[in-house]
Amino acid sequence: MKNVAIIGGSGYGGGELLRLLLAHPCVEVKQVTSRSHLGEYVYQVHPNLRKQTQLKFSNPALLETVDILFLAQPHGQAQHHIEEYVRLAPKIIDLAADFRLRDAAFYEQWYGEKHAAPEWLSKFVYGLPELHRAEMRTASYVSGVGCNATASNLALLPLVKADLLDTSAPIFIEIKVGSSESGAEGNAGSQHAERASVIRTFSAFGHRHTAEVIQEMGVDAKRVSLTMTAVDLVRGVLATAHGKVKQGVATKDLWKAYRVVANENPFLRVVKEQRGIYRVPEPKILAGSNYADIGFELDESNGHVVAMCAIDNLMKGASGSAVQCMNLMMGWEETLGLVFMGLHPI
Amino acid sequence: MKNVAIIGGSGYGGGELLRLLLAHPCVEVKQVTSRSHLGEYVYQVHPNLRKQTQLKFSNPALLETVDILFLAQPHGQAQHHIEEYVRLAPKIIDLAADFRLRDAAFYEQWYGEKHAAPEWLSKFVYGLPELHRAEMRTASYVSGVGCNATASNLALLPLVKADLLDTSAPIFIEIKVGSSESGAEGNAGSQHAERASVIRTFSAFGHRHTAEVIQEMGVDAKRVSLTMTAVDLVRGVLATAHGKVKQGVATKDLWKAYRVVANENPFLRVVKEQRGIYRVPEPKILAGSNYADIGFELDESNGHVVAMCAIDNLMKGASGSAVQCMNLMMGWEETLGLVFMGLHPI
Amino acid sequence: MKNVAIIGGSGYGGGELLRLLLAHPCVEVKQVTSRSHLGEYVYQVHPNLRKQTQLKFSNPALLETVDILFLAQPHGQAQHHIEEYVRLAPKIIDLAADFRLRDAAFYEQWYGEKHAAPEWLSKFVYGLPELHRAEMRTASYVSGVGCNATASNLALLPLVKADLLDTSAPIFIEIKVGSSESGAEGNAGSQHAERASVIRTFSAFGHRHTAEVIQEMGVDAKRVSLTMTAVDLVRGVLATAHGKVKQGVATKDLWKAYRVVANENPFLRVVKEQRGIYRVPEPKILAGSNYADIGFELDESNGHVVAMCAIDNLMKGASGSAVQCMNLMMGWEETLGLVFMGLHPI
Amino acid sequence: MKNVAIIGGSGYGGGELLRLLLAHPCVEVKQVTSRSHLGEYVYQVHPNLRKQTQLKFSNPALLETVDILFLAQPHGQAQHHIEEYVRLAPKIIDLAADFRLRDAAFYEQWYGEKHAAPEWLSKFVYGLPELHRAEMRTASYVSGVGCNATASNLALLPLVKADLLDTSAPIFIEIKVGSSESGAEGNAGSQHAERASVIRTFSAFGHRHTAEVIQEMGVDAKRVSLTMTAVDLVRGVLATAHGKVKQGVATKDLWKAYRVVANENPFLRVVKEQRGIYRVPEPKILAGSNYADIGFELDESNGHVVAMCAIDNLMKGASGSAVQCMNLMMGWEETLGLVFMGLHPI
Repeated sequence: MKNVAIIGGSGYGGGELLRLLLAHPCVEVKQVTSRSHLGEYVYQVHPNLRKQTQLKFSNPALLETVDILFLAQPHGQAQHHIEEYVRLAPKIIDLAADFRLRDAAFYEQWYGEKHAAPEWLSKFVYGLPELHRAEMRTASYVSGVGCNATASNLALLPLVKADLLDTSAPIFIEIKVGSSESGAEGNAGSQHAERASVIRTFSAFGHRHTAEVIQEMGVDAKRVSLTMTAVDLVRGVLATAHGKVKQGVATKDLWKAYRVVANENPFLRVVKEQRGIYRVPEPKILAGSNYADIGFELDESNGHVVAMCAIDNLMKGASGSAVQCMNLMMGWEETLGLVFMGLHPI
Repeated sequence: MKNVAIIGGSGYGGGELLRLLLAHPCVEVKQVTSRSHLGEYVYQVHPNLRKQTQLKFSNPALLETVDILFLAQPHGQAQHHIEEYVRLAPKIIDLAADFRLRDAAFYEQWYGEKHAAPEWLSKFVYGLPELHRAEMRTASYVSGVGCNATASNLALLPLVKADLLDTSAPIFIEIKVGSSESGAEGNAGSQHAERASVIRTFSAFGHRHTAEVIQEMGVDAKRVSLTMTAVDLVRGVLATAHGKVKQGVATKDLWKAYRVVANENPFLRVVKEQRGIYRVPEPKILAGSNYADIGFELDESNGHVVAMCAIDNLMKGASGSAVQCMNLMMGWEETLGLVFMGLHPI
Repeated sequence: MKNVAIIGGSGYGGGELLRLLLAHPCVEVKQVTSRSHLGEYVYQVHPNLRKQTQLKFSNPALLETVDILFLAQPHGQAQHHIEEYVRLAPKIIDLAADFRLRDAAFYEQWYGEKHAAPEWLSKFVYGLPELHRAEMRTASYVSGVGCNATASNLALLPLVKADLLDTSAPIFIEIKVGSSESGAEGNAGSQHAERASVIRTFSAFGHRHTAEVIQEMGVDAKRVSLTMTAVDLVRGVLATAHGKVKQGVATKDLWKAYRVVANENPFLRVVKEQRGIYRVPEPKILAGSNYADIGFELDESNGHVVAMCAIDNLMKGASGSAVQCMNLMMGWEETLGLVFMGLHPI
Repeated sequence: MKNVAIIGGSGYGGGELLRLLLAHPCVEVKQVTSRSHLGEYVYQVHPNLRKQTQLKFSNPALLETVDILFLAQPHGQAQHHIEEYVRLAPKIIDLAADFRLRDAAFYEQWYGEKHAAPEWLSKFVYGLPELHRAEMRTASYVSGVGCNATASNLALLPLVKADLLDTSAPIFIEIKVGSSESGAEGNAGSQHAERASVIRTFSAFGHRHTAEVIQEMGVDAKRVSLTMTAVDLVRGVLATAHGKVKQGVATKDLWKAYRVVANENPFLRVVKEQRGIYRVPEPKILAGSNYADIGFELDESNGHVVAMCAIDNLMKGASGSAVQCMNLMMGWEETLGLVFMGLHPI
């Protein structure tokens, strides 16, 4: 059993992480910190954990050393404290955006501020196992992933890997998201009376997660855009990438590209059915699951392709991927503690 | 007072039409037909009409002549009976898809069957007042509009009218829709347990309403696609068109184009705010209203434009537009009986 | 045209009131105040009012005299300013709880504080037209109604009026409510991610609206309880009163009692169908409507009765009733400006 | 590893059971039958099972013998085939209502038809482990439980067990339920457009599950009623029992009674907090979990008690309890395969 601690455990990402770690066969959670809920039982904030643990939120200033340290704070904290954190644990996994980008100038361009610890950017591996599995096996430090970036990157992965995209055409990625993306703090617009039944485009261009798509997929920044629309569900993201395939690329080529990727990755599934209710990737059935469901449609008459990826933003888009990273970093079975299948109906 | 009758009154479009006509100051509803609910009070099917009317559903075979006849049947009925219908009334408004397209071959291409009354196609005016107001003032026959086509056409209208679009770039229209689009009959996938909290792309390409966008916007069929995604609300459509503007077109040009269109049309509003919760077009606040809210975002760095239109699919996307057409055909004030403002919150 | 002003127009009740008054044929809205949104267009807060009015929120300190003054502030304000308000208008309608109870000691018992203007309590008429129509015709000051109290009172009204209840048995009123009851400010628990899909009993006993049921129905305080449960909708209340009828009372007696009440009141409807989807009172179809739908079931084997009333909490439970009161106070047609039928489906 | 088969695997209860059994460490699922989906992969109906199993729905006529047989058919099937089924397996667990009641006359009274195999009624143990744990350890045949009966019985259990209820006062049980209770077939009223945002009382008295409360809690049939109201969520039941405690019973007595029951039962939790969002039992956080959360409020001034129980109707109310029964029947750890904690937020 390895000892772990979580800094910032009262948010949604921290709570989900705690749930997964409490059930993980190889780790023991020693501390979970929260300034705003200091001294409270964790189940008072995360009511699903009642009767699961008697842990209370502890003071982040009093952390002891552990084998693995998870950072689940709001963005912008970790880069100011990374030197302290590395003294606490040999392995660190950060769920926030602080160490996702490899280049300090690129970071400044997208986040509108200088990075506080630019020398640390190169020491982190980007935390999506489907893209960096090999490096993770030897990595000490792994970053988090943006949930919208993850859905986008996994939608594009089969096409990019098999080099099927016409690189001169734009890629419009339409992303629909649930309310848990707003975080536990929320805002005026995420009050239920204002947020229920919405189809609300809160960002047409310029969402920060775009930077992770540019970096990880190697697409030209001018060609790609993410458009974010809030819809009425709590957990879930669907990314729908609209692009163009190279001349001559046919449906069978895409099938092959998708199958290759799904076979190489335990948490990827191709969903493309001719009958039944669930014919395409849908986040509805993924709540609590670490799967990313991928699929596509190709209009062979003009080469337009629609590539889809559905995930649970708190699982594959955050805490699930973080646990998957931990498994790889520790040399454990990649799927350990991540076997929940999701529910139907839900 | 003019006499009106509705053929096919038990569906959602028919019920909404009935609601509007019962409150309209210039008409009296004489008959509403329904085979499946023959003899029932209309309020037993449309419970909002309780204490509003004692009308019962009548037999379509026993219709008497009226001044205005509305057809609210499922698609494919009206074209087989149009010769009978024109003997019943001098003015006909059809909500279905039977007479939306002007060309029989084009109809066959999109509907996969020969049209049963091709000679009648040229006698109908396409039923969107924002596109055909002048013709409607003298028209005897007006077609319905596809709700998704309406959201798409009104999203594109300012750009097309001001000729701002780069006609060599594709137009991807992402459409999110509520469950009332499935109709009162529904299907296995529209059962609440399967339909709640979905983000379900049920048509990536090839939706029939695409034909109405091609016809009415004059865009090349190869360049435009509609991608349909069901989300969790009952009433509402948001169409988001992703395209490219001509070189040199700036945000101020779009502002001008949008304002011109909004000023010319009583039911169009430009929504583009810098603060508050409701900054962009959203169907949430349009339930029951005939407004179409339009808006845009332009990335001046690469010319990518996101053009949005939100409507209530049963109002501006069906019955509301039909009543607006009636007002124009009869020489009445265009907004008569359509003044409901919508609700907030809802 | 009479001049009206609204103090406190940025909340949900104030916004709904404004919507109704803007469409009312006999009044002109001269001022709407809001401290927090001072100077903003009202449509920036209430987006359904875009293109309906160019009114901006004004300073409550600068109000001019009007014919009718509506108070739509949070509870506890009006009682401190009533002397100022009566100098501004001869007719006042208060939507808050300040003047609902007739007895200062009773107020203190339920609100936990002394009333600031006890001498004014007797000058207000309780604002439910179904209970105080005659007094309203000559009243200068009318109070608001609690939305949950209104649903409860109208559920019980036919039984109480016809004296059918066994007064020795308890009355348990189970109330299910939507999220707009939390108000525009909201709270941590009304964030969408925490509030969606809830069945959350937030008050088992002791809700303040209970006092209005005791006062208006004349039931013994020991016998009646309101249990409040939040469910997933925005607008709507269903009150379900569980009680016992007097020995020998049969279903036909209840039918008669309900019909009498529905015939006397333009906004009451009895809903009790044997077929179809909508057989009982339901708030779903009442959004935006001023109707209160009432119904019942009686178990003749043991005298248990279930009496139901569904309303839109912002309409019949607040602003709709307030406009109905205004109509009565001014000698206008009671239903003026309140004819919206509600939507189906929604 | 024990071999199991499921008869009737395409419904919601069967699908949930299959999910649990596929992850259970001591069993192997050999067959899952479905007539309507014969030959299809189970993941085509239950999409959460994709990449979990290659099982296909098989023909119930071709079942082979197994160690444990689950019956997950619609009500009314099992009683006609029980003689066949007992030849297939030494241990049978039936999820339907066929063998829940111990008395044939009582069955006929509530189900309106003679039981087809009355001699089998006494051979089944009622399938709620919290009530019949000891008998289950030696039982061959265990029945299912009604989900609404389970929520009601567990709400009342602490009060009944500690004998705190005034047996002369009525018990009104108000039950709010999600749409998965309608089953995979659904009906006109469970179409999303008609079912979303409802508060719909579909049964005021006489729901069949009442019989299980009478039988298992030993309450007089005249005193107890279940009132069923559909609300907008997919999974979940909240039962709220309104009754009266014996004279002199205080809050501390109830606390003690609840704690005793929670300590004796691994899946019961008392929820009664003074702060935070989740202070009372709520089904929202129980989706996929086998917990039953119980709680209460007592008005000491008049003895009114509100006793609550929240469950996931497909888990503790059906398939979860069935697996728990299996664990007890087989001598395994009671919680085996049932450790999923539920999600927050969801």
